[in-house]
Order: sequence, then structure tokens, then C-alpha cells
Amino acid sequence: MSVRERLDEIREIGRDELRGGYSRHLFDQAEVQLRDWFRSSAEKVGLSTEVDGNGNLWAWWGSPGPGTIATGSHLDSVPGGGTYDGPLGIASAFEAVALLQAQGWVPSRPVAICAFAEEEGSRFGMPCLGSRLLVGEIDPQAALVRSDSDGTTLESAWRREELDVSRLGADPKRLAWLSAFVELHVEQGLDLEQRGLPLAVASAILSHGRWRVSIHGEGNHAGTTPMRDRRDPVVAASAAVLAVRRVALEGESAARATVGRLAVTPNGTNVVASRVDAWLDIRGASDQDVRDQLAATLKLIGECVAAEGCSLDVNEESFSPLVTFHDELTSRVAHILGGVPSIPTGAGHDAGILAPHLPSAMIFVRNPTGVSHSPGETARHVDCETGARGLAEVLKRLAGEETS
Amino acid sequence: MSVRERLDEIREIGRDELRGGYSRHLFDQAEVQLRDWFRSSAEKVGLSTEVDGNGNLWAWWGSPGPGTIATGSHLDSVPGGGTYDGPLGIASAFEAVALLQAQGWVPSRPVAICAFAEEEGSRFGMPCLGSRLLVGEIDPQAALVRSDSDGTTLESAWRREELDVSRLGADPKRLAWLSAFVELHVEQGLDLEQRGLPLAVASAILSHGRWRVSIHGEGNHAGTTPMRDRRDPVVAASAAVLAVRRVALEGESAARATVGRLAVTPNGTNVVASRVDAWLDIRGASDQDVRDQLAATLKLIGECVAAEGCSLDVNEESFSPLVTFHDELTSRVAHILGGVPSIPTGAGHDAGILAPHLPSAMIFVRNPTGVSHSPGETARHVDCETGARGLAEVLKRLAGEETS
Repeated sequence: MSVRERLDEIREIGRDELRGGYSRHLFDQAEVQLRDWFRSSAEKVGLSTEVDGNGNLWAWWGSPGPGTIATGSHLDSVPGGGTYDGPLGIASAFEAVALLQAQGWVPSRPVAICAFAEEEGSRFGMPCLGSRLLVGEIDPQAALVRSDSDGTTLESAWRREELDVSRLGADPKRLAWLSAFVELHVEQGLDLEQRGLPLAVASAILSHGRWRVSIHGEGNHAGTTPMRDRRDPVVAASAAVLAVRRVALEGESAARATVGRLAVTPNGTNVVASRVDAWLDIRGASDQDVRDQLAATLKLIGECVAAEGCSLDVNEESFSPLVTFHDELTSRVAHILGGVPSIPTGAGHDAGILAPHLPSAMIFVRNPTGVSHSPGETARHVDCETGARGLAEVLKRLAGEETS
Repeated sequence: MSVRERLDEIREIGRDELRGGYSRHLFDQAEVQLRDWFRSSAEKVGLSTEVDGNGNLWAWWGSPGPGTIATGSHLDSVPGGGTYDGPLGIASAFEAVALLQAQGWVPSRPVAICAFAEEEGSRFGMPCLGSRLLVGEIDPQAALVRSDSDGTTLESAWRREELDVSRLGADPKRLAWLSAFVELHVEQGLDLEQRGLPLAVASAILSHGRWRVSIHGEGNHAGTTPMRDRRDPVVAASAAVLAVRRVALEGESAARATVGRLAVTPNGTNVVASRVDAWLDIRGASDQDVRDQLAATLKLIGECVAAEGCSLDVNEESFSPLVTFHDELTSRVAHILGGVPSIPTGAGHDAGILAPHLPSAMIFVRNPTGVSHSPGETARHVDCETGARGLAEVLKRLAGEETS
């Protein structure tokens, strides 16, 4: 097979007719179909599969245990996401195993392919949910009561999948099995396209936080309420969005701030809204830069909200400190791939969550448009196959060494 | 019974746990239950019921035909609407009929109670859909292809209710039956509360238009896209909302402009959006005032959108010219009610759609908070009963006269 043929197997699953691209969210119909695809891909190359207590899917070449070399990525997407973000890492992992098996090669250590649950955070609002739970970064009790936009809690989502909620949370035994994790992912910028190269490794992931900013006003009739008597949270939120942009533009070069998600209550054409929830995504070159940007932004938002007679509450949904990938592993991967460059990224990844706990590295595959989290995301066929062959070579070297 | 007891019968139907209040949209589960309540209320007072080709429900006291005195309102709500907007007019109509029957009075003309379909426009985006179709103000072919937020067309909604889509549109025979229409409605402002009076009649309805403003940008990754490379429609829409407010504040005293509904695509926290739809609701003292306000607003919105490198399209969803209610009928109703005042309103009503076609009038019942289109909408028990008794008296006089 090829990476392209593997991705073709899932190209009709979870298409979003409204937004374009794909909407595949944790345990929805599409994501469950992708899990079936993961299992059948594993079966074809003779790998056994299991779901861990945190909803992460694992395929094992060899017996689960210490010294494991793991690869993988995620199956879920943002709403209206692209073809490659997540599935490319999974398809490439199975392709790499198939390539190694075709060579008659047998690993000296266990090799695992993992599809981490809810990497995008599009259902329960926590990016890298599965990997964060695995490493113990999230309290399972707090996770169980998170709810999706339909009001379904994580606990009931878990039960519907017949997962044992008592297994949710830190899994130190499994974590200790892993000697290294290498995630292959489509690049989410234009760096490789501009360099004219198909592959790179990741040096670091920007510091990144998400906050839900809830603005409360007074719901009323759009026709009968005079302009001067209004406390309109849509007006306050609009001023807030402009403040978010202004602060980020004044920040350091890596500073990024986005409001990409809004929920207006009740969201009626002829109604002055009563509430707006705006999700604020801030990234920066250091944790302090992100905190400083947040403080400056919230100060301005507070002023906008007060000017409209509205009130405000702010909840931190996640904070992901700056990640620096494992130097030695990253250099080694870059060398195995033929001396590819090392580039930073603004995007979060499960490899970044694992990085503080075990040697982790990432391989990026060129994206000619640089577009990401959108149907416009791209990757050339030839680059995808180059990525899988590179990943195969990396697994061969890392899993070819006896465990010490 | 009483108006209060009648409203109590439906107080659990269509509650919106998320927004508070009620969400009852055309042919959803709640609105269908309200239609059953309408039918059983009619049955209790011996009235026959029918649905016309436009989804409007009719209850008849006497045989349908020329010279009919009609009353009624609507059953649907805005998302998270109040208790009274719509159902008060229906409950009061049945209460009025019951009061007249208890007196042993028999009408000389047919009396009809009508619940007009989709008055709020919350499902298919067209306020007063049922009455507009009835009078021939909307082309039925254009109506059939309208779709709701789930992508369901009006045609398929009609078919699901087993309504004959070939009957959709102007119904001149039925319209010709109606000699007068009197709609009772909760007031949507504080005028009566400030005057210390329970009832008023309506003098006019402000001119009112709705436009969908679609802003197209470039979807991208919130972490990897530098601030200066963005074409973010959320930023453009936010600047547009502030422009809408600014123009309305500078306008004449009746000028009102609202963005109460937004749809962000794809609406992901970690995604620079690709598109924002904002619904613009403008009202004013004359049609020209509304058109002038729109032109000034769209000029500013165009500048905001261009500044962000986005593009724009604008669709008029509805335009309701200034309505002046029938002078003679309105004076007569005011007199029957004991000489109540006559006040204008910014809210649209089915009575306003019928007004150009037959003598139409409205009765307003005091709303102590003045709040509307929100769970905070109120009416005192005693005022509701006063309203129903007043409406009974109006029907008695109007339907007590032999048809000429």
C-alpha cells in the first residue's frame, strides 16, 4: 500500500458538507469509524490493539512492555479540518510498519502506534485530552464533569463507549513502558515549502493557553429597546475581539492571539443577546510572554465590557507551557532522515505533552499552502511517502536496539 | 378557566434549559405540542380547527366564510423567549370565547382564532412567515427552498407535517373572508407600566429590515499563522458590529440596529475562522430612515471588511414597511376597552402583515419589566384577565353585527 491509499480509505468519513473538510470529534460517528479503520489497519499488519483507560487507541507490534518505541498521532479534527492533521501520522505509522515487515525486519523492542483521544479539544474543550490524562496532567474527576456543546459530560461519553471511568487518569505503568515517542505530522506553516524540503524535525512548541471569556448583558427585544438602554454583550464582545488583536500585534514576533469561536445566547436575529462566550487562544515564545499578553488583553476587555454595562468572567481552559523537544532524540531523528532542519511550531501536539516525561520528537511533512485547521491544508503524495519511509527508518534504528 | 390557567397548561412545553425561557420553533417538538394544545382548547369551547396551506392554525366559531372577525397571535418563540410573546394572544382568544359562551352570547358572524406560523422567524429566518405567505407577500417557490440551521428546507419541513406544498402561498379566498383582525399581545416596552395602565392599542409598527451579512476570510491555524498574515472574519465582523451601533446611535430617536445572531465557521477555539455570518436587524420611524441607516452602516462595514482583507456579501432577508393600523377599527377598539391610549411599537406582528389587506388592530397588555424576547418578559395575572375580558367585549361588538 502507500500512505495515499491508506488516507483514501477514510476520505469519505466525517466530511463536513457545511464547512468543507472534515469534522471528526471524539467518539462521534466519524471518529468511531476512524477507530475501526485503525483496528483494521493494525490487523492487516498483524498488530494487536487495545484502548487504554483514557480513550487512546494502541496497536502493538510485539508484547506491550518496557522499552517500547512509540509513534502515532490522532484521528480527531477541528470542525471543518483538513485531510492530514492527525490521520497522516497514523497512516504513515502503519505504512512504516508495513514497509519494515516487507523487508523481513523484526524489532528487538516493542513498537506501538497510538491514536491519542481528542487532540484538538473540539468536543470537550481540552486539547490533547488523552495524552494529558495519560501523563497525569489533568485530574480525572475534573475531566469527568467536562461537557460538550450538547451538554453531554465526558463521563457519559465514556460510558456510552463502554469504557471504565475508574481507569481514567494517570497511567504511570504505560508511560514507563515508553522509551521514546516520535510523532509524524503535516507542517502547519510554510517553512518547508519556502526551504524546498520535504521533511523537518520540531525544535519546540510555543507556549499556549486557552481561556473562555463569558460576557453577560441583558437580553431584550431588538425592536423595542432603545439604543441607549442596552447592555449588549455582542457589542462588548466585538470590542473585546479588537482588543485581542491589538495586544497581539504589539507583542513579540511569536505572539499570536485568536478568537475563533463564539457562542451567542440566545442567538436570535431580533433579540439583543443576553450573553456571549468568546474563546481566547494565546500563544507566545515563552510562558511569561503568554501570561503578559493575557494580562494586557484582559485589562482592555474589562474596559470594553464595563463600558457596555456588562459583566465578565474568565476561565482558563488549558495552559500548555513552552515545550522543548528532546535534544538527543531530535538530533538523531534529523540525522536518520538525512540531516533535515529543525523548526519550531505554534501548534500543540501530543508529542509536546509527552515530552516532559520521556524522550519525544516530531517529524513534519511539507504543506505547500501552509494552511492548517482548514480544508485548504495540503501535502504532496511524494512527500507523504518520503515521510513514511523516513519514519520506518527511524523505527528501525530505535527499535532495532536491544533494551538495556 | 382563566388566561393564567390556560398558560399554565403549556408552561413545561419547550423550556430551554440552556438559555432559560422557551425555545419553540415552527414544527419542532414543542411547537407541535402547542398546536395540540390549541386544538384541545378549541375542542373545549366547541370550535372546529383546520390548518391552512401556509401552516397557520385556525379555530372556527361558526362556519368559515365572509364577514369573519378574527383574533389570535402565534405559538412560536425566539430562542430562549418569554412566556407571553405569542401564547398570551392565543390563550386570551380562547378565554374570550369561553367568557362569551358563558354569557350565552352567540355571534352573528363567524369568529376565528388563528395561530400564525413562524412569527418570530427563528427557524427559516423570515418573521411572520405564515401571514406573509397568506397575503401573498412571499413567493412560495422562494419560501420552499429556505432552509433552517440544520439544512432542512421549508419544503421538507412541510412534507414531514404532511402538508400539501402545492397549497403554499397567497390564499385570497381566506383573506377575503376576514372583515377584521384584532391581535392581543404582551407589550414589549415600558410604556404602559410608566402610564400605570393595563391596556393600550397599537398605533403603528416601526419600519423593519433584516439582512444577513456574510464575511469571508481565510481559515487557518491559530497557533501557526502570524498576526500580520491573517484575514480573520471574526475581527472584521467585530469591527462591523461596532459600526452598526455607532450608526444607530447617530440616527433618529426610533432608530434601532442590532446584531443578535452570529454564526462563525468553523467555530473552533484553535482556528482562525474562514467565515462569519452576522444578522443585522434595523428599525426606524420610516422606510427611508431604515434604508438610510442601512446604507450608512454597510458603507462602514465595507471599510472594516476591506481593512481585514476579507470579502463581503449582503442578503436582505426581509423588509417590513412602516405599518399604520386601521384608524377607525383602532379607535373603536380603544373605545370598547374604555378609552385606552394608542402607542407605537418597534416589534413586528402578524397584525402588521394583515394591516394593508384588511382592517387590523392590536391590543397590548402591560409588561412590568418591559423586557421582551427574553425569559425576563412579564405580565401580571390581573392584567392578563383584563385583556381577555376586553378582547371578549371587542369580539362581542364586532361579531355581534350582522354582515352587510
